[in-house]
Amino acid sequence: MDRYAFGVDVGGTTVKLGLFDGEGSVLDKWEIPTNTSHHGEAILPDVAAGILGKMTEKGIAENELAGIGIGVPGPVDSMGNLVGGAVNLGWGEFNIPNELRKHLKFGEEVLVKAANDANAAAFGEMWQGGGKGYKNLVAVTLGTGVGGGIIVDGKILTGANGVGGEIGHIHIEDAETESCNCGQKGCLEQYASATGIVRLAGRRLAKDNKPSILRGGSISAKSIFDAVKEGDAVAVEIAEQFGEYLGKGLGIVSCVVNPEIFVIGGGVSKAGEILLAYIQPAFSRYIFSACKNTKFALAKLGNDAGIYGAAGLILR
Amino acid sequence: MDRYAFGVDVGGTTVKLGLFDGEGSVLDKWEIPTNTSHHGEAILPDVAAGILGKMTEKGIAENELAGIGIGVPGPVDSMGNLVGGAVNLGWGEFNIPNELRKHLKFGEEVLVKAANDANAAAFGEMWQGGGKGYKNLVAVTLGTGVGGGIIVDGKILTGANGVGGEIGHIHIEDAETESCNCGQKGCLEQYASATGIVRLAGRRLAKDNKPSILRGGSISAKSIFDAVKEGDAVAVEIAEQFGEYLGKGLGIVSCVVNPEIFVIGGGVSKAGEILLAYIQPAFSRYIFSACKNTKFALAKLGNDAGIYGAAGLILR
Repeated sequence: MDRYAFGVDVGGTTVKLGLFDGEGSVLDKWEIPTNTSHHGEAILPDVAAGILGKMTEKGIAENELAGIGIGVPGPVDSMGNLVGGAVNLGWGEFNIPNELRKHLKFGEEVLVKAANDANAAAFGEMWQGGGKGYKNLVAVTLGTGVGGGIIVDGKILTGANGVGGEIGHIHIEDAETESCNCGQKGCLEQYASATGIVRLAGRRLAKDNKPSILRGGSISAKSIFDAVKEGDAVAVEIAEQFGEYLGKGLGIVSCVVNPEIFVIGGGVSKAGEILLAYIQPAFSRYIFSACKNTKFALAKLGNDAGIYGAAGLILR
Repeated sequence: MDRYAFGVDVGGTTVKLGLFDGEGSVLDKWEIPTNTSHHGEAILPDVAAGILGKMTEKGIAENELAGIGIGVPGPVDSMGNLVGGAVNLGWGEFNIPNELRKHLKFGEEVLVKAANDANAAAFGEMWQGGGKGYKNLVAVTLGTGVGGGIIVDGKILTGANGVGGEIGHIHIEDAETESCNCGQKGCLEQYASATGIVRLAGRRLAKDNKPSILRGGSISAKSIFDAVKEGDAVAVEIAEQFGEYLGKGLGIVSCVVNPEIFVIGGGVSKAGEILLAYIQPAFSRYIFSACKNTKFALAKLGNDAGIYGAAGLILR
C-alpha cells in the first residue's frame, strides 16, 4: 500500500502545505493564508481542514497516511512543545502535535510531529536538498533574520528550550551600538541577514564618497552582489565585510558542533556561488585546524525546505 | 551474574584505569605511566596488560565483563577512529577499539568503545557527576587549556572530525595580538584557562600601580580567586574580565546547542562557587532570552571524570 505524508510550514502570513509520497517526492503543494486573529486560534483548524480536504480530493484513506509533520516559527522542543509561544502567530505555549490531533481526529497510528521552522528546513535540506548524503550539517538561512538548524547524526538538535541552532544570535561584534531584534547587541544576524548586509552597505557608503554603482539606487542583498559581479570596488568591500562576519560566526559554530557541511539558504543565498567565495576564506581564519575540510553548499529547496523537512520528520 | 566494566583515561604522562560494577560504582582505580617512546606503541599493550592483570587479581571472567571504554587526548569520531592522531602520545591515525582488541583477545560480546578524553569526561559528569539527571549538557574543563564536551540527548556530540565541543577555540576577542597554541588569535582558551587567567592578571597588574596582594608573589588561578575572596579590588577586576570572556563564550555556545546545564570543571574550578558568580552575569548579557534559565554547576568527579565517562560508554 502506498504511504503518504503531509509537510506543513506555518509562516506569519501564509501556511505552506505539501503532500508527499513514501519516496519523498512532492505530489502536490499549496498555500493558505495564516489567520493570526484571536491569537491564531484558527490556524491549526485551517491546517487540519486543508489536509482532510486534500485527502478527500486525492482519495487518500487514513490508513494510507504515515503522518503529518509541521514546522512553526518558534522554539519547539523534542516533544513538540512550543516553548514560550510563537509571537508572529499570536500563539502561547502548548503541545503542537496534541493540539493538531484534536482537529484531525486520526488514530494513533498516524504520526504527528512538530519542529521549529528553521530546524525543519535544515532537516529538509539534509533529506532532499543541498545537504543530501550528510548526517551532520548546519543549515543557515540568510533572510530577514539569520536562522539556523543543526542536524547531528541525522536528527534535529532541538536543545533544552527548542532554541538549538539559533546561530543568528551568537555574539560576534563587541563594538556594535545598535540593538538586534532580540535585544542584545552585536548578534550575527545584524550583519549577515538581508537587512544586515544592507546596514553594512549603508555604513560603508556613508564613510566617504568613493564612486559606486550602489550610490543613489535602492540597496538590497541582490543589488550588492550584482555590483560585486560587475567589479564594483565598494560592493566588494561590503561583501568582504559580510563574509568576514559570517565566516567568523560559522567558524565559531564549527568549533562547537563540527558539522560535515554548512548549507546556506535564504534570500541572500540567491547571489549564488559567489557568496561562498566570500564566506570560506574568512571561515578558515577562525577554525580549529581539524575543521579545515568542512564543506559549504547552497541550499536547493528554496521556500519548500520547510514542507520537505516537516514531511521528512515522518518519512525519513 | 555481575557485570563489570573498565574505564581508561589515557593522558600524556599517566594512564588512569578504573574498574566499575554494573551500578556505576568504582571498585578499584589505579594509574600506570604513559610510555610515549616509539610513537607510543606500548601504550595500548600496557593498558591491556593492566586490565587482564586486574581481572586475574579480582577473579573476573571474560563473560562477566560488559566492556572497556577508553578516552584519549585527540579527536575521536563516533566509530572510534582517532582523526589526525594524538600529538601528546605520538599516535597517528587508527581505530582505537580495533587496536585495543588485538591486545585483549576478547570475543565480540565484550564491548570496546573510545572517545575523546574531554568528551568522555563530559559523559562521566552527566552519568555520575555534576550533571547527573541531565541529558543535554556542556561540560567545560578549565585546565592548562579549555576543553569541552557536549552531550545531546544523552549522547556525545563527536562531530564530523571528532572535534565537537572544542569550545576552547571559539573566537572571542578580535583585538588579541598573541597566538593561541592552535595558531589562531583570540580563542576562549587564551582567557579562560588556568594560563589564560594568569595572562589576564599579568596584563592588569602591568597597567598601573594600584595596590594588590597579587603583586610580588607567584600568580595562579588559585591565588587570584583567593585574593578575590579577601576583597582585593585588582583581583576582582581580573575575575570580572575572566567571567566576561567565559560568560560570553558560553553564551555563544548556548545559542548553538542550548544545553540544560553547563558543568564547570578543571583546576580553575577549584575556586568553587565564586567562579559561577563571575560567569553567570556575563552569560546573561550574551544569550537569547529563551536560554535565560540555563543552569550552572561545578563538576564533581575531578580527575576521575575521564574513567567514569569511559566506563559509562559501556554501562550507561
